[in-house]
Amino acid sequence: MNATLNQSVMAELLSPQELFTHWQGHRALTRRTILAFPEKELFTFSIGGMRPFSQLVMEMATLAGPGVKGIASGEWVPIDHTGGAQRPTTKEELLDYWDAITEEMNTYWPAIEPARFLKVEKAFGAYEGTNFSTIQYLIDNEIHHRGQGYVYLRALGIEPPAFGDR
Amino acid sequence: MNATLNQSVMAELLSPQELFTHWQGHRALTRRTILAFPEKELFTFSIGGMRPFSQLVMEMATLAGPGVKGIASGEWVPIDHTGGAQRPTTKEELLDYWDAITEEMNTYWPAIEPARFLKVEKAFGAYEGTNFSTIQYLIDNEIHHRGQGYVYLRALGIEPPAFGDR
Repeated sequence: MNATLNQSVMAELLSPQELFTHWQGHRALTRRTILAFPEKELFTFSIGGMRPFSQLVMEMATLAGPGVKGIASGEWVPIDHTGGAQRPTTKEELLDYWDAITEEMNTYWPAIEPARFLKVEKAFGAYEGTNFSTIQYLIDNEIHHRGQGYVYLRALGIEPPAFGDR
Repeated sequence: MNATLNQSVMAELLSPQELFTHWQGHRALTRRTILAFPEKELFTFSIGGMRPFSQLVMEMATLAGPGVKGIASGEWVPIDHTGGAQRPTTKEELLDYWDAITEEMNTYWPAIEPARFLKVEKAFGAYEGTNFSTIQYLIDNEIHHRGQGYVYLRALGIEPPAFGDR
């Protein structure tokens, strides 16, 4: 294999912009998954002692927003999955919270200096790895928990949004 | 932003080898998820009319093996999620099938010419996109369905393997 060609090929496929578009595509699908839940079940329905989908969504949101800010600035704050004072208690508030995170990500992502993706840091003051690997983890974690939301929806007799539709 | 630096930074993070290691890390976690299931429930347990975990696993396996072969060779065959004549009917056979796919991937991956990742093709004769986007989809699809297996395990009162352990 030709290492240089290798690298230029992969670079063209996964620029920071491509990575961000991929992530926001996943987040748009997660938003449609939130929309598919009835309000009550969004906050209460659970299988096998797991967290309701609203709490899984808060985990994703409170990692994504502060994650992008941390990577852009190098300043990490500990994770708080509750959302603090803005903690959503209705479906509309949860969607608003989600949309505010989307805007925050749109603002901070372009401010990430390219070399920052390579940097090894303790994300959220706790998880050591390159900032790129942190982003990869956040996307994987969102797919994982959204897939669980799909099971909740099926158990409630509701058709989830099409997985391939991003 | 400096586009050239951008590209070289991303290239260093996601070489074909890195991508493959990431994928096989996910597949190792999926294997531990299969192991966590009791044999009967692996083939029968379902929530909300969904497929049992064994069928979700067969979907992942029959996409991964032929997917890597298709990308390496440019020759695509239609998807057959049953496994054909080798269709596993026990937990041991499913694990053997999984491991055979792992070996097949290990064999064919190094044979992928770097420029092939960029090529737009109809994966499995059906899904058009770059071969890189096909790999990304297969990984995302595996995470999605494995997350569903976690809910099945929780519903059965079984602790799933640690998600971050790859």
